[in-house]
Parts: sequence; structure tokens; C-alpha cells
Amino acid sequence: MGASVAVISAEGEAHVILPEDEVELAEPGSGAALVPYKPSELARITTPIEALNDPLRMLTGQLGLARARIGIELDQGMQPASYVTSTDFRSSLPGLLQQLLPNAAFVDCSEVLERMKAGKTPKELEVMRQAADIAAWGFAVAADQIKAGKREAEVAAALHSAFQSSIQPERVQRSYGSFFCMSGPNSAKAAAAYARTRQRKIEEGDLVMIHANTCADGYWTDITRTYTAGGSTARQDAMRAAITEARSAAFAAIRPGALARDVDKVARGVMAAHGFGDAFKHSTGHGVGFAAANGNALPRIHPQSTDVLEVGMTFNIEPAAYFDGYGGMRHCDMVAVTSNGAEVLTEF
Amino acid sequence: MGASVAVISAEGEAHVILPEDEVELAEPGSGAALVPYKPSELARITTPIEALNDPLRMLTGQLGLARARIGIELDQGMQPASYVTSTDFRSSLPGLLQQLLPNAAFVDCSEVLERMKAGKTPKELEVMRQAADIAAWGFAVAADQIKAGKREAEVAAALHSAFQSSIQPERVQRSYGSFFCMSGPNSAKAAAAYARTRQRKIEEGDLVMIHANTCADGYWTDITRTYTAGGSTARQDAMRAAITEARSAAFAAIRPGALARDVDKVARGVMAAHGFGDAFKHSTGHGVGFAAANGNALPRIHPQSTDVLEVGMTFNIEPAAYFDGYGGMRHCDMVAVTSNGAEVLTEF
Repeated sequence: MGASVAVISAEGEAHVILPEDEVELAEPGSGAALVPYKPSELARITTPIEALNDPLRMLTGQLGLARARIGIELDQGMQPASYVTSTDFRSSLPGLLQQLLPNAAFVDCSEVLERMKAGKTPKELEVMRQAADIAAWGFAVAADQIKAGKREAEVAAALHSAFQSSIQPERVQRSYGSFFCMSGPNSAKAAAAYARTRQRKIEEGDLVMIHANTCADGYWTDITRTYTAGGSTARQDAMRAAITEARSAAFAAIRPGALARDVDKVARGVMAAHGFGDAFKHSTGHGVGFAAANGNALPRIHPQSTDVLEVGMTFNIEPAAYFDGYGGMRHCDMVAVTSNGAEVLTEF
Repeated sequence: MGASVAVISAEGEAHVILPEDEVELAEPGSGAALVPYKPSELARITTPIEALNDPLRMLTGQLGLARARIGIELDQGMQPASYVTSTDFRSSLPGLLQQLLPNAAFVDCSEVLERMKAGKTPKELEVMRQAADIAAWGFAVAADQIKAGKREAEVAAALHSAFQSSIQPERVQRSYGSFFCMSGPNSAKAAAAYARTRQRKIEEGDLVMIHANTCADGYWTDITRTYTAGGSTARQDAMRAAITEARSAAFAAIRPGALARDVDKVARGVMAAHGFGDAFKHSTGHGVGFAAANGNALPRIHPQSTDVLEVGMTFNIEPAAYFDGYGGMRHCDMVAVTSNGAEVLTEF
């Protein structure tokens, strides 16, 4: 519920202060020392920041941080939806730390953490693969669900249900997420970051975009497939041909040391060559893993990006074409940078 | 996606700075003046706080706030999951405001806003009723879904699907939420704020708790019902009798001017009289509306609360009994304070 705090030393020793009922979720294999606290009681009313006071004083004292140089997240960031409600400490957590450690020096470490979050360890990559694999269960029923007369909300519900029912407990401890369905003109609006399922009835000949953000044990995916209701038209075939070629071109450009903007350039070049330059309205991709929809997550596969790809980075590749009033087609995959190229996590 | 900022004058005039693709969601009937901005572009990489810079400078200049006394949310709060990812400005929004308005005075207004959020206007209450009504569609299929051999995840998926498919577009523009299923010993763990559906197979004789947090057009519900797999046992009947009586006693104690702690007291008294005093581990309720699971939302129906009930306040009433290793039963309703008592929003 977001009321946990991690304290990590420069040597990589991690301590996590967390509500006692979330202890079972703090993977012991992570090597972090856990400091549980009671989040609420009947004898007094405790706010999240008050609940942190004692364990934070205890832990920072034990670690000898009175005069330490401490990096804290002060700058903006994107927060994944870990639950229906999450704790937002705003300025109260830096305030508490300054009060507990008046002689410590505090610096913003948001940028350092964002850089570290871009690359995944082999263990994290394995969870990312699981997250992508289980998302596939939702898409597996899509072709059967999409037909003229069905409402977008019905299609999204069926896919979500297939996803949620298929989770294999031996592989994933926690999994949740959202499936969105956007049809006809609504699929053109999917060029924006905020996806939304509506009550529109699908019509014959529509483009029908299915977008999913799913999470397995804390790691997120960003996946889109676009279908047609009934047989596809020549216009739709042309869009698909361009997107398929742009996708392959982007994959071929991914390798350690490559500039992220060059990956964008090759994909954008293919779309333009097919006459869809203006219709490809957003960047080719962005980092995905610790959050789903964050266009600023590293690496940014954007024309103006200065990011350099490194082994273990995970991001999406999402060539697309949108036409207001008609519809949009997007094919969004999850990829990881390997020692000599790209591993596609969503080969379905 | 959380990248919007509202600027509200002391006279109640509201301006909302928001991404252009969310304009259609900013209800024109709210009377707020909308200031749209482009959240991303291909010509440059823009972070959420950078995107706010120009519109915020323009708006604060236009409103003449250079030397104003400005309340901003600095203290902790609970943030509802409005999407798979949301923007967390942390310290960067107060920082930008101080930079744009170096001669303004900034004070924390979190507490004022929390008090204002406790009471709902008649228009907001109508949306809360819709939110409760549509949640009922999920529960409507619960009795048929809960049987020995089914996994919790399957039950939760079926209820969620029934909920999501039943949304009536003429009543609600946006609706989403979560249904959780916790059976047998897992239902005892539901005493904590964090609900979790697992892969456990329901067994004959289990208590099976269904918990829902649903949202309609920005307003949240917090609803729980508990079923039995197969016929109920004498122990389960005794728990249900106590909870039903505690619920009625709490409802009867609700009226404008009543102390929230007295509502807790009567419910707790009934549970104790039935021998379930220790099993009722949490407070009788808390404010619900702008977020779902926030035990600190006003009014706090807690033994130590100093809150006084007022007309229009919305909260949950959730008498419960939990026994580790056996199971838990909770019945959680949404209520609104009326001029002479309580309106139950979840009469199902």
C-alpha cells in the first residue's frame, strides 16, 4: 500500500520498513532485512508517517546515519498502481527524515534511481518474462471475443477474466492488471497515454485495439495488439504491413551501445516510407518494468533521446498509426537488450 | 494520470490544468475553467513537471497570485489508483510553485482539504449512489460462483467480469475497480487493510469473503460480503448474527452531531456481547469516497476518534470477526449521513 520505506547503503545492503501484514510479500530471497511495524491499532489513531517514526528512528540510529549523506526521492516520478489506494508521503517523509537526522545531508537521488531501474538483473528479467507470459492468456481469447455488436467493456472484461483465471501460482505470487478495448474512432484516441475502455458497440470493419498493462510480482508489462472486426480492409492491411516492418526494423537496431534515438529513427523511417509518418504520433517506446505507462522511463526510444542501450534494459516497441475519426493500429511488444541484440518477451 | 493541477480561489472559482486528452473527462458541468496542455511531443522530451511550467505560470499570473497566500498539499495522503500508473510530483511541484511565485506564501492545506473531502455535495452523493449500485452487479453473481473446488482467483475474475460488463453508459462515464476473494484461513488475513486474492481452492465449509473497491467517475466504494461454501455451521451463524446486529446498531447511532467514536462503541459493544470483542480487530469504519482503503479518511469511526458526523459525510460500516487459521467474516456497507440518520448506499 505504499507505506514502506527502503534504506539502502552504498554497499548495497538493503533494509525495508514495512507494515507487518506485507511481510509475507517481501521476498526473503531478496536479501533485504525486514523491519515490520503495526500500521493501525485500536488504542490510538496512527497516520502512515507517524507509523514510520519509531522504526525509522531505530533503523537510522542502528545504521549510524546521523551525519550521513542520504539520497532521497524528491523529484517527480511515475507510481505504478500497486493497490486500489496507495500512500503518498508528499513532503512529509523528507520532513520526518530531517527531523530525525538534523545533521545528515539530504540530496535528491531520483535520477540515479531512475537510471538503476532501467536495467534489470537476470532474476528480474525472469520475472519480466513471467509477466509477459501470463499477459498472453488474456490475448489468447481476443480473436474469439471481438465481433460486431459486442461492447468494448464486454470484450475487456472477457480478456481480463481469462488473464486473471489463468494465473499459475507456482510461477507468480501476485498478479493483476488492466485490459483495455478501444474500437473504431476510439482506437485513434489511444495515441494518448491514458487508455480507456468505453461502452461503444464494435462495428463491422472496425479496428479494435486491445491494450494491456499487467503486473507480476511487482514488474509491469505494456502490450498492445490490434484486431479487425470481420475481414480486414486494404487500408488496414497497409497499416499492418508498415507496423510489422517498423517493428522488425526496430528490433534489428537494438543492441548494447546503440543510441535509443536511432532505434526510433529506423522505425519512424519505415512508417514514413509507407506514408504513415504523420500518423505515427508518439515515440517508438520507453522503459517499462517498475511502472507500465511512463513515457519518461529510461531508455526513451524517442527522436530527442540521448539514452544509450545497455544489456538488461527493458522497454516497449510500439509502432502505430492513428487517424482521427477512423481508428488507430498499434503493435506494442516488450523487449530486453541482450549481449548481441533484443529478446522479445511478447512473441505472441 | 495524475498530471493535473487544480487552482481554487478562496471564493471557490476553480481552474484545472490538465493534459489535453483528458479534457473530455473533466466534466464541464463542474464549472471549472480548463487549461489544457500537450503532455508529450516528438520535438522534445518533456517531463510532467516541465509540462506544467508554462500553463502554471500563465494561470497564476492571470489570477494575480504573485503575493498570494497559497495552500498546497504537503502532508501525506492516500492516493486512489486512477490508472495503472500515476504521476507522483513529490517535492517538485512545491518547488516549481516557489520558483514561479517567489513572493507568495505557501502553507500546508492537506488537513483543510481532508475535512472538505469528508462531506459530499448532493451531486457527489448521487455519483456515490451510482458507484454503489453498479458494484452490486459483481456481488449479484457471487452466490452462484462460490463453491468448493473453485480457486479464489476464478471467483474474483467472474465477479469482476460481471461488474465490468454490466456498466450502464447512460449512468456512469468511467468505472473500474477490483474484486477480491479470500477463503478459509485467507479470509482471517483480511483484517489487514491490504486485500489479496490468492490461488487457494475453496473447501466445503469455508468462509468466503468477497471484498470490492469500485470507482464510478472518480468516487470510490468499499464493500464486503461474506459467504459460506456449502451450508453454514453453527459457528458461522453465530458470527453472522453478531455482525448483523452490530451493523444495525451502528446504523441506528448515525446522525448529524453524533460522535464517530460512539458509533464505533455501539458496534463494538454488540460484538463483545456476542463474545467476538477480541475478534473485531479494526475500527468500525472510515471515510470513503475520494479513495477506497484509507483508514485515516474522515470521519474515522474509531474508538479514539474525535470526529463529529455531519450531513453528507460518507463512510463505511464494517463490523467483522477474524480468527487466525480459521477464517474471517466481514460485512462492509457504504453509508451517508442524512439530516436525521443514515442512508445505506449498499442495500443488497
